[in-house]
Amino acid sequence: MEKEMLTTEMILDLIHRKDVPALRQLFEDYEEIDLAEHCEEIRDPVDLLFIFKTVKSDYTAELFAYLSADQQENLIKLFTDKQLLDLLQNSYTDDIVDFMIDMPANLVSRILDSADKATRAEINSLLNYKEGTAGSIMTTEYVLFPSTFSVAEALARIRKVGRDKETIATTFIVDEKRLLIGIVTIDDLIYADPGTKLTQIMREDFITTSVNVDQEEVAQLFKRYDLNVMAVLNDDQRLIGIVTIDDVIDVIDQETSEDMLKMAALSPLDESYSRSSVLTLAKKSIPWLLILMVLGAFSSIILNRFEHALEQVVILSAFIPMLMDTGGNSGNQSVTLITRGIALNEIEKHDFPHVILKELRVGIIVGLSIAAFAFAWIFVIVGSGIIVYDVAGPAFTATWFVEISKIAGLVGLTLFCAVLIAKLVGGALPMLAIALKKDPAVMSSPFVTTIVDVSALLIYFLLSSAIFGLF
Amino acid sequence: MEKEMLTTEMILDLIHRKDVPALRQLFEDYEEIDLAEHCEEIRDPVDLLFIFKTVKSDYTAELFAYLSADQQENLIKLFTDKQLLDLLQNSYTDDIVDFMIDMPANLVSRILDSADKATRAEINSLLNYKEGTAGSIMTTEYVLFPSTFSVAEALARIRKVGRDKETIATTFIVDEKRLLIGIVTIDDLIYADPGTKLTQIMREDFITTSVNVDQEEVAQLFKRYDLNVMAVLNDDQRLIGIVTIDDVIDVIDQETSEDMLKMAALSPLDESYSRSSVLTLAKKSIPWLLILMVLGAFSSIILNRFEHALEQVVILSAFIPMLMDTGGNSGNQSVTLITRGIALNEIEKHDFPHVILKELRVGIIVGLSIAAFAFAWIFVIVGSGIIVYDVAGPAFTATWFVEISKIAGLVGLTLFCAVLIAKLVGGALPMLAIALKKDPAVMSSPFVTTIVDVSALLIYFLLSSAIFGLF
Repeated sequence: MEKEMLTTEMILDLIHRKDVPALRQLFEDYEEIDLAEHCEEIRDPVDLLFIFKTVKSDYTAELFAYLSADQQENLIKLFTDKQLLDLLQNSYTDDIVDFMIDMPANLVSRILDSADKATRAEINSLLNYKEGTAGSIMTTEYVLFPSTFSVAEALARIRKVGRDKETIATTFIVDEKRLLIGIVTIDDLIYADPGTKLTQIMREDFITTSVNVDQEEVAQLFKRYDLNVMAVLNDDQRLIGIVTIDDVIDVIDQETSEDMLKMAALSPLDESYSRSSVLTLAKKSIPWLLILMVLGAFSSIILNRFEHALEQVVILSAFIPMLMDTGGNSGNQSVTLITRGIALNEIEKHDFPHVILKELRVGIIVGLSIAAFAFAWIFVIVGSGIIVYDVAGPAFTATWFVEISKIAGLVGLTLFCAVLIAKLVGGALPMLAIALKKDPAVMSSPFVTTIVDVSALLIYFLLSSAIFGLF
Repeated sequence: MEKEMLTTEMILDLIHRKDVPALRQLFEDYEEIDLAEHCEEIRDPVDLLFIFKTVKSDYTAELFAYLSADQQENLIKLFTDKQLLDLLQNSYTDDIVDFMIDMPANLVSRILDSADKATRAEINSLLNYKEGTAGSIMTTEYVLFPSTFSVAEALARIRKVGRDKETIATTFIVDEKRLLIGIVTIDDLIYADPGTKLTQIMREDFITTSVNVDQEEVAQLFKRYDLNVMAVLNDDQRLIGIVTIDDVIDVIDQETSEDMLKMAALSPLDESYSRSSVLTLAKKSIPWLLILMVLGAFSSIILNRFEHALEQVVILSAFIPMLMDTGGNSGNQSVTLITRGIALNEIEKHDFPHVILKELRVGIIVGLSIAAFAFAWIFVIVGSGIIVYDVAGPAFTATWFVEISKIAGLVGLTLFCAVLIAKLVGGALPMLAIALKKDPAVMSSPFVTTIVDVSALLIYFLLSSAIFGLF
């Protein structure tokens, strides 16, 4: 590729010099998304408008779809009715709906006014689908054939209307009631004899979805059946739109981001990190931190009630972070594994007993390993003087070994219980969430930490009271 | 869909009754992946073999690709050379390589022996690409045209060879040195006049990747440019394979799972949770738990060194979990936001100063809010007697207010500092990781917790020493 590196200055320079041929050439040479990234940097919308005035509408419509909501709004305010109509005619309805959703009401009504009647009806109905459903990500630009068509007729129709459609990879055959009876791929059409009827070559075992189905389920179907296009039916089983793979990939990324943020005690963002304001980020961060802090009171109560133990065996406090962190980390491991398994459809509701049994067995192995290591590790850090424990007397005497064994045994035993509880609770809560039809990501993380912290501290102090005779 | 619900019993019954026509019909009526899920449950490989003996090879080859490694191995052991050859001829090379990677060496050599010379060479070269590169996910079944071809010739070639190829959606035009000079989509071919030369309609601004490029980068390109197929070039810029969107979706899921597990202090799994053994899960869980426990010694040292503070103002211990949890959670929020932003290519190396500045501002707002809430909250839990603090004397007297203000102020101030540090460190570490070309997911989480724990405890005890005059 000996193409020049694209820069914002390069584009601005062409605009200011009003070099229309060079500007048009730019759209031949570079991808729209790359151009959009630089157009985003152009401060003056009037400069940007120049591109929309001079470059072909099918290029600028795609460019427009990639711009930020702010830039889109700036441009629409400057557009003449003719320019707005051009944009609408050259954009796919799903893209139009995407940018209209965030627009102020006056611009929305201006856009609707500029659209022709059919487009207006389509936009209106698409705008009414709930966010996160198949309806909200579908487009209405698909190719449809009556069941009477032959392959030759179908190909002729595709040559006539295909260019305005989002895809011709899969086309749809409906009966006289507009009920979907089969699909043909472009491959089928190419391989078939031109005289063949579509009904002879169409596939009848196709996958469809319903307009109100959750977009995450749609994505699962795409993945499971390696689809590129899927038909969307309304409640009467009539074809009303299609979902294409590029939108599904966005859904996958978006749903995963939501899961990750929820598991990190964050409310999901509506926009990317870079486009979110400081205030928005703070607002998304605070609620769960507060909830978790309030839940943390349970740990505080336990420490408060066992103050006498800490006063009498003050070294106990030194190992509290070790217990809490290891317990929390173990629980987080299980929550992440199970929540991710659920998101990928590898783990389902009926796997509950398997998951619990597995976590129990994993918990025993991990708990024993961690406990054994911790036992030895405490000898190391106390023996080396990293942790000072004067009560035990001179190091490496028999009394010292007995005293250190007490504290190391206490910590080891507590760790074993904490890891086991963490794995069990971490495995059980996400499963419980799906059984109750709740979101496993948001349900689990906070509660696991709280439950594990409280149980670890409780076990620690009860055991220490027994070992050191503190009652 | 009035189709009967598919069950394992149904399939087994047909096998035992040797009802070949019904068995074949099953493969017409149901998707291979659904059938594979039930075939997975069939215990006796000889039963399963019956399907491979009787059903058409292009169905069974796909079925085979969806089976688990264990079932695949069982079957290959039973296959005659003829059956093995059939399987290889009807499978795409990327699928063959996928199942061969986990096979024992003797089976690998048996498979290679059964393959014809060309297939063997292809498999061998694909097996040699490093896992996680474009080469490891590419397939060699693509359609290629010389630059002299016309549209009619291209369509004729597609009709002849297309069915054996993974996709005809995008086809490739090479010059006499096999250098890729353009691509045409099937849409282009359909719309063009049959007599047109391919060189006239081909697209020259296509996106390619190189065989050693990380599969994650390949996925980024697919997303950025809404691709369905991408050409893979070797070091001499010659076309040697293609990557298709279905494999890219698997890559996206796999890379995200890895990120999530790493952030949860787990080593990535090679298989799904359900297919991983208890021992494997334990092995993946233990290392980071141990590392984090060892790092936790820093917190222990601080608590140990400030034992005298805990002895004199014993209520201090009650708020340690609150500090550690809130600090850890704040840091985790930032790490997750930034790491995810990096994974989605929204945040890049040069954004370092922006990220730090943003986290600083978010940290101040969140820190102030959390601190203010904590200040009031401590009055609530001590005033209500949930946390007992006798030293403060009778509740709601002037002395009581002064004493509680001291501890509430101490906790609030520490929380402010802890949140601010957590946000800064949580934002900085993933950015530092990419600057050093390390994995942001694995670098950050453990260190953030440790750094935040240690600084929060240190600040807490230093401030408490000042406030309560403990030096």
